[in-house]
Amino acid sequence: MSSVITQISNTLEKKVLATNKLIESYLKAENAPVIQSIASHLIKSGGKRIRPLLTLAVADLFNYTGKADIYLGTAIEYVHSATLLHDDVIDGSEKRRGKTTANLVWDNKSAVLVGDFLFSRAFQLMVKTNSLKVMKILSNASAIISQGEILQMGVTRNIKATKKQYMEVIKSKTAALFIAACHASSTLTNTNGENIEAIIKYGEFIGISFQLIDDYLDYVGSKKTIGKNTGDDFSEQKITMPIIHAMNYASNNEKLFLKEIFEKGSSKSDDFERVLDILDKTKSLKFTVSQAVSWSEKAGESLKVLPQSEMRDLLIELAYEIVDRDA
Amino acid sequence: MSSVITQISNTLEKKVLATNKLIESYLKAENAPVIQSIASHLIKSGGKRIRPLLTLAVADLFNYTGKADIYLGTAIEYVHSATLLHDDVIDGSEKRRGKTTANLVWDNKSAVLVGDFLFSRAFQLMVKTNSLKVMKILSNASAIISQGEILQMGVTRNIKATKKQYMEVIKSKTAALFIAACHASSTLTNTNGENIEAIIKYGEFIGISFQLIDDYLDYVGSKKTIGKNTGDDFSEQKITMPIIHAMNYASNNEKLFLKEIFEKGSSKSDDFERVLDILDKTKSLKFTVSQAVSWSEKAGESLKVLPQSEMRDLLIELAYEIVDRDA
Repeated sequence: MSSVITQISNTLEKKVLATNKLIESYLKAENAPVIQSIASHLIKSGGKRIRPLLTLAVADLFNYTGKADIYLGTAIEYVHSATLLHDDVIDGSEKRRGKTTANLVWDNKSAVLVGDFLFSRAFQLMVKTNSLKVMKILSNASAIISQGEILQMGVTRNIKATKKQYMEVIKSKTAALFIAACHASSTLTNTNGENIEAIIKYGEFIGISFQLIDDYLDYVGSKKTIGKNTGDDFSEQKITMPIIHAMNYASNNEKLFLKEIFEKGSSKSDDFERVLDILDKTKSLKFTVSQAVSWSEKAGESLKVLPQSEMRDLLIELAYEIVDRDA
Repeated sequence: MSSVITQISNTLEKKVLATNKLIESYLKAENAPVIQSIASHLIKSGGKRIRPLLTLAVADLFNYTGKADIYLGTAIEYVHSATLLHDDVIDGSEKRRGKTTANLVWDNKSAVLVGDFLFSRAFQLMVKTNSLKVMKILSNASAIISQGEILQMGVTRNIKATKKQYMEVIKSKTAALFIAACHASSTLTNTNGENIEAIIKYGEFIGISFQLIDDYLDYVGSKKTIGKNTGDDFSEQKITMPIIHAMNYASNNEKLFLKEIFEKGSSKSDDFERVLDILDKTKSLKFTVSQAVSWSEKAGESLKVLPQSEMRDLLIELAYEIVDRDA
């Protein structure tokens, strides 16, 4: 675990423990125990839990003393997990071509229904915050996220996708939930409108930075850690920032190659290696990271209007750490 | 349109028009216009809209004068439509085996994402009612419904499914939303706890009756109207009340046949015809209707504790009309 996340987690230790406990216990499904085993597999392998941590950190930043931030952080993590599950149905359908149809059906079934269950549980937790403001923020975010997923379909296999389209997709599918975490959490507190504006901007900018790094790692991470395995975005034909940048700077032959690969799809590691070479040559991965850095800088800047405090400074550092992560 | 539904619609004409208008206009997705075309196709072909009508009728029954019932009715219809869409992903995957995978992927994609969008819109509308009670009722119902869908997986292809299991499935997957419509709507009004209890029971009982008739019509409707077409439950291997009853009264040979058909699946119209013959012989369709009638009677009875009014009597009649419908 990286150092700023660890520092924030330590500072908020009791809250983090309570949230982790709730994330696991609230999966219980009285009538359908099978849900719990599927959902808890996902939730337990679910990574860094940066969204609930952010929720708790923002509440702390504005001196919140209640416990609704625990409900809110759990709800946000469930929405995130449900989105992942529903993404899996969509992205997985092709990848699983080799498996039997029955298996595919079962997987789709589980993913859709358990995702719906997680959405419902998130909704129940939001009700527990007892705040209409929180529910308004989260319901709006939820509508934006589902529109973002649809927008993403428009840039999949579409080699002509622009940077502008890509930014719209990541703002709605990723940044919206970071914004909602920061915004909803701040409304639980007594802080003023100006501070709320600042934390909303922070959420948006680190959300964008986070997704840019995700899209960068999808190429670099596969190369470093999984040897010849191809990245998910490559095999799912998703057009992300590295590819959009490469299409502007590659040679005509390379452009034709990228067009063919992303329009028709490929699972060959040779093709993936060639894509990586083109990304290197056009400095597209470096460009993606530099974009992330500048969004993280903007995130940090946006918090400087707030009075200095330990948590404020940790959140500013967090914006930079997001860029430095390697998974 | 049948007569009691028409009478209720006429009595509540302005509300019904406003709700229908909202059902169509609130589908608009600023960032992803494609959503609207998919969702509105579903919504416009979406049948009787009995759930929003029930919502409006209950508000009227208890002399509600605000407009939150319009938001609530629309939200309930969206939850229903989203559930149908997600059901489609699940059930459709097998039926669409013949089509190209790309098509299957696109269909699944659309169904999952547009379903999620409808859930989000429903959530936004519930927030508009400005009532934490409404949100609590709906979020609880939503968790029960998704558990019901999972429970249904347990009775699919399972010829040993019992009446008790079947009742649990239909109570959670169908009756829960009827209950939520009645319960949430009643909490918008100033009516007392005893009346709310009565309308909750009414919602539960007509929900059960409604699903029993759906499962009856799935056999009889196909026979009457679509000639040799097989019913959906038959082709999707869902074990419903007619089959559960038949398994108790059929000969050993017939039981073996049903077991084979529902465990392995069949798309042959000859097999479907034989299933229909067994249902006739064992009086399983008649039994299913008689069960629905008795739940409708219980629904009517439960309203008799309320003071007599035109709307109360229409709702009592509606419980019987649910049994008489033929689509």
